[in-house]
Amino acid sequence: MDLKQYIADIKDFPKSGIIFRDVTPILDDPACMMQVVESLSRFVMESKATKIIAPEARGFFFGIPVAMNCKIGFAPVRKPGKLPRKTISQSYQLEYGEDSLEIHEDAILPGEKVVIIDDLLATGGTVEAMIQMVERMQASVVGVACVIELDDLKGRDRFHEIPFFSLVHYQGE
Amino acid sequence: MDLKQYIADIKDFPKSGIIFRDVTPILDDPACMMQVVESLSRFVMESKATKIIAPEARGFFFGIPVAMNCKIGFAPVRKPGKLPRKTISQSYQLEYGEDSLEIHEDAILPGEKVVIIDDLLATGGTVEAMIQMVERMQASVVGVACVIELDDLKGRDRFHEIPFFSLVHYQGE
Repeated sequence: MDLKQYIADIKDFPKSGIIFRDVTPILDDPACMMQVVESLSRFVMESKATKIIAPEARGFFFGIPVAMNCKIGFAPVRKPGKLPRKTISQSYQLEYGEDSLEIHEDAILPGEKVVIIDDLLATGGTVEAMIQMVERMQASVVGVACVIELDDLKGRDRFHEIPFFSLVHYQGE
Repeated sequence: MDLKQYIADIKDFPKSGIIFRDVTPILDDPACMMQVVESLSRFVMESKATKIIAPEARGFFFGIPVAMNCKIGFAPVRKPGKLPRKTISQSYQLEYGEDSLEIHEDAILPGEKVVIIDDLLATGGTVEAMIQMVERMQASVVGVACVIELDDLKGRDRFHEIPFFSLVHYQGE
């Protein structure tokens, strides 16, 4: 299966000069989706993770079925004000300004081994924020897995000490 | 399994007087999650659906694993500006003002049989908007399934001609 056939390339979205890599055609094809979930699951099983976390909303596309497939728990990471119970918040830098992510404070127990899943690794800013969040909860990130890696943005360099897995690579934006 | 043990009740969230029913503990328990997904999947299989749609972000929690389990495609319904390709937009009334939802215009083909999945049915406004959206795409909604139903808000009355399934019921807000 050539996974790139299931990724739509949209020029100038969300802004001029960016090529957006759209994974929604994967969701529309159950055989392709199963292959992606099984590939990500093998990485998770090898990492001996006890929990998956993923950021809203596209991280949920893959994080939830992978957690089910591996028979481990899943915790959503969301934008501020979306999670109803007591949260831990982690801010991170954007190109201009900053943003933050939240997780329920009881979603990860001390000592847990966490894998972070997302659809795409770009500059790695949100992944780095999630790693800091997990470490503040006295747990450790034992792996990061994305469907797509934008190689030349070098997001991996932000967490080179943590095992990383991606299924498909692109250059450029 | 008493599913209500996996639903957290948060008073006064997101605003005073509301009890928010939080499904994230279901995601944290793979055995509970599997039971929920299998229950929803039975309804989907009986409806002979060819596609699942669900609104961001909590609808993704259940819609995606159910689509995989039933081996049919999934299409996300998102807030305006989030989907990168050409979309169909449907507005709906809120308590004050209005909001809208979008779906990729190629996500549902004419004649498809669609099941809508969400975490919770309250007043049914977003479900009604999604039904209108599907019908504008020359397809039909053959079922609506939610984990939680808030009975006294009577959301079901908005689409009484369409089969509906929910796993757990609450009264009050």
